[in-house]
Amino acid sequence: MDKTETNASWRQRLHEIIYEADTPFGKAFDVVLLIAILASVLFVMIESVESLDTKYHSFLNISEWVITLLFSIEYVLRVIAIKKPLKYIFSFYGLIDLLSTIPKYLSLFFIGSHHLAALRALRLLRIFRIFKMARYIGASNKLLIALKASRAKIGVFLFFVVISCIILGTIMYMIEGAENGFTSIPKSVYWAIVTLTTVGYGDISPHTPFGQLIASVIMILGYAIIAIPTGIVSSEMTKNLDSKIQTNTQACVSCSIEDHKDGAGFCYDCGSKLN
Amino acid sequence: MDKTETNASWRQRLHEIIYEADTPFGKAFDVVLLIAILASVLFVMIESVESLDTKYHSFLNISEWVITLLFSIEYVLRVIAIKKPLKYIFSFYGLIDLLSTIPKYLSLFFIGSHHLAALRALRLLRIFRIFKMARYIGASNKLLIALKASRAKIGVFLFFVVISCIILGTIMYMIEGAENGFTSIPKSVYWAIVTLTTVGYGDISPHTPFGQLIASVIMILGYAIIAIPTGIVSSEMTKNLDSKIQTNTQACVSCSIEDHKDGAGFCYDCGSKLN
Amino acid sequence: MDKTETNASWRQRLHEIIYEADTPFGKAFDVVLLIAILASVLFVMIESVESLDTKYHSFLNISEWVITLLFSIEYVLRVIAIKKPLKYIFSFYGLIDLLSTIPKYLSLFFIGSHHLAALRALRLLRIFRIFKMARYIGASNKLLIALKASRAKIGVFLFFVVISCIILGTIMYMIEGAENGFTSIPKSVYWAIVTLTTVGYGDISPHTPFGQLIASVIMILGYAIIAIPTGIVSSEMTKNLDSKIQTNTQACVSCSIEDHKDGAGFCYDCGSKLN
Amino acid sequence: MDKTETNASWRQRLHEIIYEADTPFGKAFDVVLLIAILASVLFVMIESVESLDTKYHSFLNISEWVITLLFSIEYVLRVIAIKKPLKYIFSFYGLIDLLSTIPKYLSLFFIGSHHLAALRALRLLRIFRIFKMARYIGASNKLLIALKASRAKIGVFLFFVVISCIILGTIMYMIEGAENGFTSIPKSVYWAIVTLTTVGYGDISPHTPFGQLIASVIMILGYAIIAIPTGIVSSEMTKNLDSKIQTNTQACVSCSIEDHKDGAGFCYDCGSKLN
Repeated sequence: MDKTETNASWRQRLHEIIYEADTPFGKAFDVVLLIAILASVLFVMIESVESLDTKYHSFLNISEWVITLLFSIEYVLRVIAIKKPLKYIFSFYGLIDLLSTIPKYLSLFFIGSHHLAALRALRLLRIFRIFKMARYIGASNKLLIALKASRAKIGVFLFFVVISCIILGTIMYMIEGAENGFTSIPKSVYWAIVTLTTVGYGDISPHTPFGQLIASVIMILGYAIIAIPTGIVSSEMTKNLDSKIQTNTQACVSCSIEDHKDGAGFCYDCGSKLN
Repeated sequence: MDKTETNASWRQRLHEIIYEADTPFGKAFDVVLLIAILASVLFVMIESVESLDTKYHSFLNISEWVITLLFSIEYVLRVIAIKKPLKYIFSFYGLIDLLSTIPKYLSLFFIGSHHLAALRALRLLRIFRIFKMARYIGASNKLLIALKASRAKIGVFLFFVVISCIILGTIMYMIEGAENGFTSIPKSVYWAIVTLTTVGYGDISPHTPFGQLIASVIMILGYAIIAIPTGIVSSEMTKNLDSKIQTNTQACVSCSIEDHKDGAGFCYDCGSKLN
Repeated sequence: MDKTETNASWRQRLHEIIYEADTPFGKAFDVVLLIAILASVLFVMIESVESLDTKYHSFLNISEWVITLLFSIEYVLRVIAIKKPLKYIFSFYGLIDLLSTIPKYLSLFFIGSHHLAALRALRLLRIFRIFKMARYIGASNKLLIALKASRAKIGVFLFFVVISCIILGTIMYMIEGAENGFTSIPKSVYWAIVTLTTVGYGDISPHTPFGQLIASVIMILGYAIIAIPTGIVSSEMTKNLDSKIQTNTQACVSCSIEDHKDGAGFCYDCGSKLN
Repeated sequence: MDKTETNASWRQRLHEIIYEADTPFGKAFDVVLLIAILASVLFVMIESVESLDTKYHSFLNISEWVITLLFSIEYVLRVIAIKKPLKYIFSFYGLIDLLSTIPKYLSLFFIGSHHLAALRALRLLRIFRIFKMARYIGASNKLLIALKASRAKIGVFLFFVVISCIILGTIMYMIEGAENGFTSIPKSVYWAIVTLTTVGYGDISPHTPFGQLIASVIMILGYAIIAIPTGIVSSEMTKNLDSKIQTNTQACVSCSIEDHKDGAGFCYDCGSKLN
C-alpha cells in the first residue's frame, strides 16, 4: 500500500509538471517544450530549402532526431502521468502530440513523410495556457462561442457558394472552352472559386467578351456576398459582448478535462479532486 | 366513386413519398435522389476531363442515360402526384427539375449541351429539407430575410459600383491605351471591375505612372467601399437576431406550398387538409 | 402683363416636364432621356472596339452627333425653364449635364476626347428619381447619411493606409531592388497598395526570402485592417436603422432644390410655391 | 535670476511655437514643417526614378541636404525647448524625428540608406494636430480605442491564421512539390498566406488537381474567416458609439504630455502650468 501511495504521488507530481502551468516546474517544462516545438518547426522549414539543406544536412538531421526522441519521451510520460490514459490519447491534443512525434520515425520507411513534422505547429496552440494569458484565453473563448453560434448560418452560406461555383464554372467551361484555359469542368469550378473569393491568381482568365462579362458578374457577386459571413459574425459578436471570461488553466488528473471554474475543488466531469 | 377514392389515396401516398421527408419511404426516396444527383454531377465533371473521358467514355455515357431516365420518371411522377400540376411545373423547383432532366436529350441535337446537366447541382438545395436540418433551415431563412430587407440598399450600392467602373474604365482606356492592354472601353471596364473588387488577375495591368496612380485610387476605393455591403448586412442581421425559426417540411398536397406551422392541420394558403 | 403670365406658365410647364417625374409628360421625357443616355454610353463603348468601329463607323458617328444635338437642346431648355439658371448650371447635375454634352464638340479639336462621353453614365443616377423608386431613394439616402457620419473615421483610416504604403513600399524597394521589378519607390508604393488592398496583380512580386516575409506581413495586415472601415460603417448603420425615408421627387421652380416633404406647399429653401 | 527668467520665458516661447499649434507663430511653424516633410518625401521618391534622377540629380541632392539641415536644427530646438529633453527624445514622435533626420548623414557612409528618409512620411501624422481637426482627432481616438479593446481577439485570430498557413503550406509543399513552384516549405507558407488573404499574385499557383482542391479549400476558408476580424471590430465599434471626443492640442511645457481637457489650467500628469 505504501508503494502505491508513493507511486500515486509521484504520478501526481508528474501530472502537475506536464499538464499544468501553475507551478514553477510546470511552467519551466512548458516553456522548454515551446522552444523545442518552435526549433523543430524551424528545422523542418530550413531542411526543405535545398541550398540550406545541402549545407547543414547532418546538423539538421541529428537535431530532428534529438527533438523527436524528446517528444517521444514526453508522450510516454503524458500517458503515464494520467489516470485514464485512453482519454488523453484520443483527445484533440493527444492526437496532435502523437502526430507530432511519429513523422521522423515514418521517414525511415516513407521518403518525405518527415515534412509532416510541421504539424507540430499545432502544438503551439498551448501557448495560451502556458503564459496564463487570461485575456487571450477569454478572447479565444469568445471567438469560439461566436463562431459556434453562427456555424449553421456559415455552413448554409458556404454550401450556396460551392453550388454557385459548380454552376458558374460549368457555364464558363461552355463559354470559354479548352482553348482559353478552361480545359475541364473541375478546372473551371476551381477558377470560379478563385474568382468568387476575390483571390484572382490569373493563371486562368477569360478571353472572350462574353466570358469576361460573366466573370465580371461573378466578381461583383463575390464582392457583395462577402458581406454575408461578415454580417453573421458581426451580429453574433455584438450579441455576445458581455459573455464572461474563463481563465483557470488546471486540467483534471484523472480525465484531463479543462475549463474548471476558478476556485473549483473537484472536476466537474468525473468528480476527482483538483490540486 | 370507389375508384376515384383509391386513385386519390394512391396519389396521396405518392405525394407523401415524393414531396415530403417525414415518412420513412419519403426519406428513403429523397436520399436515393440526393445520391443520384451527386453521382450525376460527378459524372458530368469527370466526362469533361479529356483523359478520364477517353478511358471511361461508354460507362459515363450509359450512366448519364440511366440517371436521365430516372429523373424523367421522377419528373412525371411529381407532375402526377400533385393536384395542381401547373403550379409545380412553373415553381422554382419545378423549373430546376425540368432543366436537370432535358440536357441529355438535348445533346442528341446540340453537341455539348449535356454539360448543362451540372445545373442538377441546384437540386442539392433540397438537402436542407431532407435531413430535417431545422437549424439550417432556420439559418437560411434568417439569411434570406436579412438579404431581402437589405435588397434595396445593396441594389443601389451595386448600381454605383457599375457606374463607377464604367467611368473609371473609360478614363483608364484614355490614359493607358491599346498598347498597354487596354484595347477597348468594354475591356477597360472589365479591368476596372477586376481591380475594384480586389480580384486582380493581372492579365491586364497599368504600365504608365499616371495609370498606376489611378489604379491605386481604384484599389483603395474598392478596399474601403467593401465596407458598405458589409455594413448593410451586419446592421440588418443585428436587427433580426430574434426572428423565429421555421422547421416544418410538409408541402400541401393540392397547392404544394411549404412553410406550414408546426402542428398545422390545414394548408394556410388553400385550406386543404395536411397529412 | 398678359404676355409675361403666358411666358411664366409656359416656362412652368416646361419645368414640370423637364425637372419633374410626377406628370405623364414629365415621366415620358425622363424615360426617353434614359434610353438616349444608355444608347449613347453603348455607342461610345462599341466605337472603342476596333473591329466593330470599322464595320459601323459612319452609323456610330452620326448617332453620336444626333444624341449630342438632343442633349444640347435639352441643356438649353433646362437653363431656360428655371428661374435661377446659374444655380442649375453650377449644381452637381448641371455640371454633369454640361460635361455629357461637350465631348463630341471637343472631338472636333482634340482627337479622342469624345470618349469622355462615357461620363454620361453619371446621368443614369437620375434613374432613382424617374421611376419613383421610393425604397431606393430612401436606401441611398440612408447610405449617404451613414457614409457622411463615418467620413472622418474613414478619412483617418485611408490616411494611415497611404502613409503605411509609402513606408512599406520604400522598405521593399531597399530589400528587393530594381532587379526584382521594384524599379523605383513610386512603383514599390504602387506594389504595396496592390498588396495591402489584397488585389494582387502579380505584375510585380517579391523574389527574395526576406522580401516575401515583409510581403506576408503586409498581406496579413491588409487582411486584418479591412475590418476597420467595415466596422466603422457597420456601427454607423446599426445606429441609423430607423432613419426616415424621403420620397418626394419635386424640384423647386425657382431654386431647383429637392428633398421637399410630402405634401409641402412651398419650397423650404426659397419659399416659392411648389406645384 | 533675471537672466534665468528671460531664458525660461525664451524657452517657453520656443516651446509654444514648436510644440503647439494654438498661436499664429506655432501654426505657421507647423505648416512650413508639413510642406518641408511633403517636399522631402517627394524628393526621395523622384530620386529613386532613374530617368528623373539623371536629369535633376544635383538639384535633388542639394534640396535633400537643405531639408536635412533644417530638420537637424528643428530637432536641436525641440530638445532645447523642453524642460525634460529625454522624455521627448525617447517618445514616439522624438524617435521618428531623429530617424527622419539622420538618413542623409548615414548616406555618407552607407550607400542607399538615404532612402530611409521616406520614414519622414510618419511625421505627417502631425497633420491632425496642426489643423485643429477636432473631428479627425476624435475619430482617430475612437478608432484607437476600438482597436485596443479588440487587440487580444485580433491577436488570437492572427495567431491561428499564421499556424494555419504553416500547416497548409507544408501540406501543399508535399502535394505539389518543387516542380510546380512550391520549392520549399517557407515558400509554400508564403503562398498559403498569399492565398488565404485573397491577395493571389499568381507567381506560384497549384497545378495538380489535388493541389487545386486544397487551394480551393484555403480560398473559401480565407473568404469566410475574414468575417472574424471584421466582426470583432464591428461589435467593438457598436459598443463605443458614444465615447467622447478629445480636441485640445496643447502639450505640457515640462513633460510634453498631450490629451489635456479643454480649459485645463495645469498638466494632469506633472502639475506644471499650461499656457
